[in-house]
Amino acid sequence: MPTNRLGGVFAPVLTPMFDDLTPDTPKWIAFCKQLLADGCTGLAPFGTTSEANSLGLSERMEMLDALIEAGVPAARLMPGTGMCAIPDTVKLSAQAARLGCGGVLLLPPFYYKGVSEDGVFRAVAEVIERVGDDRLKVYIYNIPPIAVVGYSLAVIERLLAAYPGTVVGMKDSSGDWAYQQAVLEGFPGFDVFTGSERYLLANLRLGGVGTISAMANVIPDKIRFLYDNYLAANADQVQADLNRPREATKDYAAIAALKQIMAARTGDRTWITLRPPLINLSQAAADELLAKFAAA
Amino acid sequence: MPTNRLGGVFAPVLTPMFDDLTPDTPKWIAFCKQLLADGCTGLAPFGTTSEANSLGLSERMEMLDALIEAGVPAARLMPGTGMCAIPDTVKLSAQAARLGCGGVLLLPPFYYKGVSEDGVFRAVAEVIERVGDDRLKVYIYNIPPIAVVGYSLAVIERLLAAYPGTVVGMKDSSGDWAYQQAVLEGFPGFDVFTGSERYLLANLRLGGVGTISAMANVIPDKIRFLYDNYLAANADQVQADLNRPREATKDYAAIAALKQIMAARTGDRTWITLRPPLINLSQAAADELLAKFAAA
Repeated sequence: MPTNRLGGVFAPVLTPMFDDLTPDTPKWIAFCKQLLADGCTGLAPFGTTSEANSLGLSERMEMLDALIEAGVPAARLMPGTGMCAIPDTVKLSAQAARLGCGGVLLLPPFYYKGVSEDGVFRAVAEVIERVGDDRLKVYIYNIPPIAVVGYSLAVIERLLAAYPGTVVGMKDSSGDWAYQQAVLEGFPGFDVFTGSERYLLANLRLGGVGTISAMANVIPDKIRFLYDNYLAANADQVQADLNRPREATKDYAAIAALKQIMAARTGDRTWITLRPPLINLSQAAADELLAKFAAA
Repeated sequence: MPTNRLGGVFAPVLTPMFDDLTPDTPKWIAFCKQLLADGCTGLAPFGTTSEANSLGLSERMEMLDALIEAGVPAARLMPGTGMCAIPDTVKLSAQAARLGCGGVLLLPPFYYKGVSEDGVFRAVAEVIERVGDDRLKVYIYNIPPIAVVGYSLAVIERLLAAYPGTVVGMKDSSGDWAYQQAVLEGFPGFDVFTGSERYLLANLRLGGVGTISAMANVIPDKIRFLYDNYLAANADQVQADLNRPREATKDYAAIAALKQIMAARTGDRTWITLRPPLINLSQAAADELLAKFAAA
């Protein structure tokens, strides 16, 4: 992997919030720094797990400014910038490029359903043309279980042909390994991050560049260990061990579960706040989850 | 219906755009005025059909300001204000209330899927509390075929109990008549607009207040005629006649089809522009659609 390309273990950073639902930016910045110290090679603030889609446009811009001002290297950041409307996506993406972010993680416009491949291509193309900044590096974000709208292989092919130096990779959270394998095999040099660390070993073996995983918020060291040792003889066992924490959390709303783990670990109850429409776990569910996670 | 409540025929106003995809605000304002002259009792700018979710936050705010400054009565407007993130929804809703709009049309937060009823309730509650303006009149917007997230009967019941003077009605675009009937029968005094004029007669007969229909962009007079004559002996025949234009367009992407009709009617080709991810019809499809619509 060329040194100027992103790879490794990225966390879609959880967003701590005060009781009044405003982001606790100092706590968030400290958490970002801790994740980098604990094994993350980079960060994807404003991912799905970050509740980015529950943050306002100006909140996101102010938080990114503050994060970089606080000394987190922009080159290690891949903020989520994909909104429903092109002008809003352009605002966030242009800011990220201007600040020197290593990349942006780009959801397709996700309100309208049943849109054409041509429509998705044109939406991304408009964003790139309007940002008009050679520093922009786009990682498309494929997460049809939530966004419903996704990126087909045909759209990826068209984007790579049209913007070869700008569309450089993707995060695949489809949960569909056959799709990810087809991308890895079909587009060599296109940097594929798997959205779940349970596919990390398979991703790396097929030339993928790592993972952007919600679990990296709570077990960055374990995920990093597999990334660093994927050629080791016992790599399959390391992957199997790595799957247990995710398995322990799978029956609970994912973001709420991770926030409970953070609250338990830090003794700081403010971690458990989520913005509606997401809500935190009941005490009973939280207790059960924490016991399962501790035993994993 | 009390005179200070909205009812009748509302158009989710199509948004004309220049080739560079910026909204043609003067043309849009003129079209709004024409719709009111042609039979619409009110307007729902920034609905799904308006491509509102493809417009940036500041574009929407500037356009609403301009529309009211141009003399369109705010009391007859129900702008769409529901975004994914509460702060953005609050900005748009507070502006609408401050400007005296008759109501706001509120999508639930639609990014996260599988959210709880409690989460949807809390999201709407947060918006109402944060706007904190007695002038705010909320019409919830139920459109699960596109937003996926919808409003259940239990959520409606909770909202009406908590905010009886603020949550005053809804637009139901579920396409599920059994659902709409249950709302009409279950919540007397809650003002239900049907999202499709093909249910207008049924809606009015059960105490509904009218329709907010995409087709009102192109046949406001015909829809208004049924609204004004729904007690007439031949009302069923009027409804059947009214269904033909929609039937003629149903095989085509809805917003693109309506923009083609506008372009053909006005001789103004700029009407056909849509913002990605939506795209216009091929010439062949447009020709076919226009022939069917003309014959309807």
